[in-house]
Amino acid sequence: MTSDNPRKDSPERLARVAVTELDAVLGEAFPVLDHGFIRVIDYMGSDASIVQAARVSYGTGTRNVSTDAALIRYLLRHSHTTPFEMCEIKLHVKLPIFVARQWIRHRTANVNEYSGRYSIIDNEYYVPSAEAISTQSETNRQGRGGESLGEGTASAVQALIRADAERAYANYEALLGGKEGHDGSGIARELARIGLGVNFYTQWYWKIDLHNLLHFLKLRADPHAQHEIRQYANVLLGIVQAWVPIAYQAFLDYQLNSVSLSSQAFAVLRQRLAGVEVDFEGSGLARREWDELNALLNKKS
Amino acid sequence: MTSDNPRKDSPERLARVAVTELDAVLGEAFPVLDHGFIRVIDYMGSDASIVQAARVSYGTGTRNVSTDAALIRYLLRHSHTTPFEMCEIKLHVKLPIFVARQWIRHRTANVNEYSGRYSIIDNEYYVPSAEAISTQSETNRQGRGGESLGEGTASAVQALIRADAERAYANYEALLGGKEGHDGSGIARELARIGLGVNFYTQWYWKIDLHNLLHFLKLRADPHAQHEIRQYANVLLGIVQAWVPIAYQAFLDYQLNSVSLSSQAFAVLRQRLAGVEVDFEGSGLARREWDELNALLNKKS
Amino acid sequence: MTSDNPRKDSPERLARVAVTELDAVLGEAFPVLDHGFIRVIDYMGSDASIVQAARVSYGTGTRNVSTDAALIRYLLRHSHTTPFEMCEIKLHVKLPIFVARQWIRHRTANVNEYSGRYSIIDNEYYVPSAEAISTQSETNRQGRGGESLGEGTASAVQALIRADAERAYANYEALLGGKEGHDGSGIARELARIGLGVNFYTQWYWKIDLHNLLHFLKLRADPHAQHEIRQYANVLLGIVQAWVPIAYQAFLDYQLNSVSLSSQAFAVLRQRLAGVEVDFEGSGLARREWDELNALLNKKS
Amino acid sequence: MTSDNPRKDSPERLARVAVTELDAVLGEAFPVLDHGFIRVIDYMGSDASIVQAARVSYGTGTRNVSTDAALIRYLLRHSHTTPFEMCEIKLHVKLPIFVARQWIRHRTANVNEYSGRYSIIDNEYYVPSAEAISTQSETNRQGRGGESLGEGTASAVQALIRADAERAYANYEALLGGKEGHDGSGIARELARIGLGVNFYTQWYWKIDLHNLLHFLKLRADPHAQHEIRQYANVLLGIVQAWVPIAYQAFLDYQLNSVSLSSQAFAVLRQRLAGVEVDFEGSGLARREWDELNALLNKKS
Repeated sequence: MTSDNPRKDSPERLARVAVTELDAVLGEAFPVLDHGFIRVIDYMGSDASIVQAARVSYGTGTRNVSTDAALIRYLLRHSHTTPFEMCEIKLHVKLPIFVARQWIRHRTANVNEYSGRYSIIDNEYYVPSAEAISTQSETNRQGRGGESLGEGTASAVQALIRADAERAYANYEALLGGKEGHDGSGIARELARIGLGVNFYTQWYWKIDLHNLLHFLKLRADPHAQHEIRQYANVLLGIVQAWVPIAYQAFLDYQLNSVSLSSQAFAVLRQRLAGVEVDFEGSGLARREWDELNALLNKKS
Repeated sequence: MTSDNPRKDSPERLARVAVTELDAVLGEAFPVLDHGFIRVIDYMGSDASIVQAARVSYGTGTRNVSTDAALIRYLLRHSHTTPFEMCEIKLHVKLPIFVARQWIRHRTANVNEYSGRYSIIDNEYYVPSAEAISTQSETNRQGRGGESLGEGTASAVQALIRADAERAYANYEALLGGKEGHDGSGIARELARIGLGVNFYTQWYWKIDLHNLLHFLKLRADPHAQHEIRQYANVLLGIVQAWVPIAYQAFLDYQLNSVSLSSQAFAVLRQRLAGVEVDFEGSGLARREWDELNALLNKKS
Repeated sequence: MTSDNPRKDSPERLARVAVTELDAVLGEAFPVLDHGFIRVIDYMGSDASIVQAARVSYGTGTRNVSTDAALIRYLLRHSHTTPFEMCEIKLHVKLPIFVARQWIRHRTANVNEYSGRYSIIDNEYYVPSAEAISTQSETNRQGRGGESLGEGTASAVQALIRADAERAYANYEALLGGKEGHDGSGIARELARIGLGVNFYTQWYWKIDLHNLLHFLKLRADPHAQHEIRQYANVLLGIVQAWVPIAYQAFLDYQLNSVSLSSQAFAVLRQRLAGVEVDFEGSGLARREWDELNALLNKKS
Repeated sequence: MTSDNPRKDSPERLARVAVTELDAVLGEAFPVLDHGFIRVIDYMGSDASIVQAARVSYGTGTRNVSTDAALIRYLLRHSHTTPFEMCEIKLHVKLPIFVARQWIRHRTANVNEYSGRYSIIDNEYYVPSAEAISTQSETNRQGRGGESLGEGTASAVQALIRADAERAYANYEALLGGKEGHDGSGIARELARIGLGVNFYTQWYWKIDLHNLLHFLKLRADPHAQHEIRQYANVLLGIVQAWVPIAYQAFLDYQLNSVSLSSQAFAVLRQRLAGVEVDFEGSGLARREWDELNALLNKKS
């Protein structure tokens, strides 16, 4: 452990870990939806920081892992998550309120949000593109069906959403009593804004460690997540790839695209591999799990 | 420590701690605003649980504190907060979305919120009472001025808010394609709702420990909090009083109504107590702190 | 959603949810290791509370799930974890310090620990049983090998551990200057105790929600966890089974005994199920993952 | 808010915020106690980042605060804590186990600790200096008395602590069966180490945001904290001063050296300032609070 004790070594000067690929896009606004964006403001750490933290924990125990990539993949595969918490990123995000309400449910993060109590809200609201407008799914109670509406219907929907927002904003301004609301005649900002729809944009600084960011992405890049937050998740995936490419690939392999099988479902697979036919009745699975298993096995890869 | 080791004692049977005053109102809806409520669904612990936890921590070290009340007050006064975390409460709350957005910023809590993706949102929205409608404060950038508007103006504001909400809800139903949205013609629920204002009501189960609840109340029962969330905080204060009356009183004395003075401000007070006149120039305080200190000293008690 | 608004209904009175099986053991000390125990002090919620919270979130969206058990299993299978946070349990645990140090790494919990600064530490320390004493594993850097030492060697190890502890405690008492340390001649308790080994027992109140408790058990009931903390995890499994039997079974099936396969490993299985032979070179797996996959497939069920 | 939307502006390139004073000591080991240290490994943000985050939250609402320093002081004085969470620091700390056990109670932080399961523990343990050895306080149940023991007594205490540690370490090596414990004859590392005292050193990477670090310092730089952890807190104070000097000064003035008065105690002060004599009976304070108030007023500044 000699090398971990700097007082025994020569005086050691560190420079902060930097990632060229991320430095290159610092401050740049990656557009999302019609008015949103994600900007990387700052970050701490890299793939090397994950390895460094793991080697503090496991000491000489990590010497027999041949490479950094193998170590990172091992850590992620075996849920040794704390080294991933040693990386941190700070983002500036502009997003509709209804997306913000899903986003904020991830509690292990730091947030500074624009306040409609202190300041005037901009006249910017989300209108879904024609492709994003679809009917309620028949099979998925929380989502949209596979097919978009026709172009004409979509236009009508967009027009209706737009008209609602414009009227709500006009009333907001009327209540404020002047565009800046500073003439004293208007009602308080914190009250005037209550009629604005949840498709109006807000923005925040959001800071999170890599472990919790990957957990966020596991849930929000999933097909069951709402279309709009997935657009943000997709941009975040690109940012993570630029920042920590090895951890990113391990995340794809072992988490985002991994398959979790119940003990019963795995037993079915083992029987089949041994040449035993297993049907629903013999599987020990509930109907819904049986269907989910077969969907997995038949999915086009 | 003999008494802490039940295996040395006779077999000990516990019954769960119960609080008669809270049991009496379990499930009851305390109304808040025009359509909101708070209901107590379940709770764990009481004033006695705070004492019990403290005695585990400090062992015989707590023997010389004469009474439970003195111990609880000592703990709160000296920021020994962990014993307060041993009490937990679960509430069912119905509240406007803009209040929910302030509320959710308190991260150390558990939440299950009604989902507009899965289910149809009710046509219930908040319209402020005439007394709650006032102009922007001139001195406080985040709040309302002291005076309400006239009755006529207030009515106009209410009518405008109501008309906005009704129109938004009618469009929501139109997009759903039928009141229940189940005929397949409508667009997905998760999309149809994006034009509804932040004054529409949502509801959730919210579970939190007593320490974090008191922290919530310290911030949200404060005059700087928005009027609407303060109405919820006021009801919560009553619930806490029924639940843990001793901790409640200690909270009022040492936190909610306590005064925090900077080292410089306290030095000014000590000089004055010693008969020394101190003016602004000699105080070492910034102008804003000087004004805040004098406001404190001159406040009508 | 009418039924969710109690003000529209008749006045509704709740009684707290109770679980007979857990009430029957409240306060009872379940022994662990040679001097440790776990006692259930209090709890909030049951399987029914999980369902209740889910129905608030998903509203009518949960109506088509036939039974409570099916709903709980669905929630756990699809990582809808927040309803499980609506259950809470408070335990009194006595455990060796080195176990406490692993335990405390689970941060989302509330703790009040016995303090060696305030009070005298008991002369109780952990000595492993003969069966628990084994050599360092050759293959697992963090664990023990499969075979125990002979009886004679084990006795020698125990004697050595015991002698160390007795001497350390005698010195502790000497430093305190009297068994009670109150005669003023002794050095401060907080300092006198620093020579006591990490096998000395401490105790705490520990309060946690069900979701985080299951996560704790996923990691600490795992064969890679240290033998001693696994003894605690095993007792906790029994407590969870008594408390929330449906969630417990779902946890076994979908988490504790489930199998997680990387996208590459799952692709290998699908090829094999389709009758295609896949060897290491063609698998796209690293050697270590290839070995882990084959170990899974060949494990005796 | 135009300037907050980079897409409307010219393309904006950021460089990461850097703090020269902290860069100058990156990686340097600040010694603490006899073998411990604190090293700054990485950090994110500066005083400017606090201001930047606040301006996102309050928008134009912060324009009338004249300077960055005034804004930071205002935020801290009024418990607007989230902007302070936007700064993060990562430290490498070497510390005795009993200090680590106090330290880890601060849950909102990320930790990777050296593992005695994976690797051999070094023969390094804490022996208090002669000045640090004192008797149990008569008045403070958790602390040491004001006076150190004589030199002779202190030497005896040190010798006893040293002898205990040396013997425990020799037994540790004996159990391991060789200094490296790799010859297969020794018992598992995770078991061999259980007799080592809590004064043995461990080390970890510890990452925390500025708000939570200040909270840590508020508690651990306090005279009631144990002498040894206060030595770490003192070094951390110096690091914070180098990193965010404005926030540091605000922390000293409004938190570390501030005075919190209960509503009753403040009422007593106001009466006295108005020339009214108030004695204990008339104060409405409990005896202990009365004594604490007088101690505050009479403290030498």
